[in-house]
Amino acid sequence: MQLADYIRTIPNFPKPGIQYRDITTLLGNPEGLARTVDEIAEKVQGQGITCIAGIEARGFIFGTAVAYKLGLGFIPLRKPGKLPGKVISMAYKLEYGEDELQLHDGALTNDDKVLLVDDLIATGGTAEAASKLIQQTGATLSRCGFVIDLPDLGGMKRLRDMGLDCFALCEFEGG
Amino acid sequence: MQLADYIRTIPNFPKPGIQYRDITTLLGNPEGLARTVDEIAEKVQGQGITCIAGIEARGFIFGTAVAYKLGLGFIPLRKPGKLPGKVISMAYKLEYGEDELQLHDGALTNDDKVLLVDDLIATGGTAEAASKLIQQTGATLSRCGFVIDLPDLGGMKRLRDMGLDCFALCEFEGG
Repeated sequence: MQLADYIRTIPNFPKPGIQYRDITTLLGNPEGLARTVDEIAEKVQGQGITCIAGIEARGFIFGTAVAYKLGLGFIPLRKPGKLPGKVISMAYKLEYGEDELQLHDGALTNDDKVLLVDDLIATGGTAEAASKLIQQTGATLSRCGFVIDLPDLGGMKRLRDMGLDCFALCEFEGG
Repeated sequence: MQLADYIRTIPNFPKPGIQYRDITTLLGNPEGLARTVDEIAEKVQGQGITCIAGIEARGFIFGTAVAYKLGLGFIPLRKPGKLPGKVISMAYKLEYGEDELQLHDGALTNDDKVLLVDDLIATGGTAEAASKLIQQTGATLSRCGFVIDLPDLGGMKRLRDMGLDCFALCEFEGG
């Protein structure tokens, strides 16, 4: 069984024409969850990663389990107003409007080598903002790992064009 | 070092008078994260738990790592509009207004014995709604585990009054 086989496709969510790749069926399956976490961890083992960063909310799911597996700490990148301490922020454009990611000031240092984890990369707007936010701290963004890539939407290319080292565990055609 | 020592307190967040217990300092510390996940897992090992459920968003952080550690699947309880499949819902009251939790229909069955995980229990309103939602599926809610209990706010008592078996890894006085 391929990892992609654990992922359910829901047509027309959140709007007509979108094939939504639903990771909850993968998460709910003990083997699916374990394989996903182990495969991400294997891809970065021995590369000197010092911590894992994950994007709210589904990046928390995989990111923390990978951090636990590798014996590292986890740094959450959150939506505005959620982190209680002093934060640094990065705004980014959505299809309609703008959003923002925040990171606790001091959560990362110059010495950190970060693996950024999220469940899926589509156009890459959120991942680009997360990457810039991590780099703004002076830390090195060593790699970006995703469970799912939608290559037709170009997000992985966008990150590679920024000079970032990216991988995904599986991919689906279309958006 | 006690687990509580990894948790930072931020005064007057999100509003004056609240001592916010910030788990990001625990998460970012490899030992803090590992000990938290291991301690939750140890508390439920050998009790026939079949899956872990976690409440958006900080319950995802600990819940998935615990599921991974125990070799189980993870079931997310999410805010409205986030889960793409058919859902069941439970509304609950907030200090001002209402909110709702959702669970994928079919994600839990009569045979499941669930551990519900969240980072913190305060008044217990969200945890009560999550518990009722899990029980509504026919699954058994075997235990509720929290990283932090604020006993002065009565949430744990509220869950115990529902007949639920609860634990927390540490507690803080005040709200």
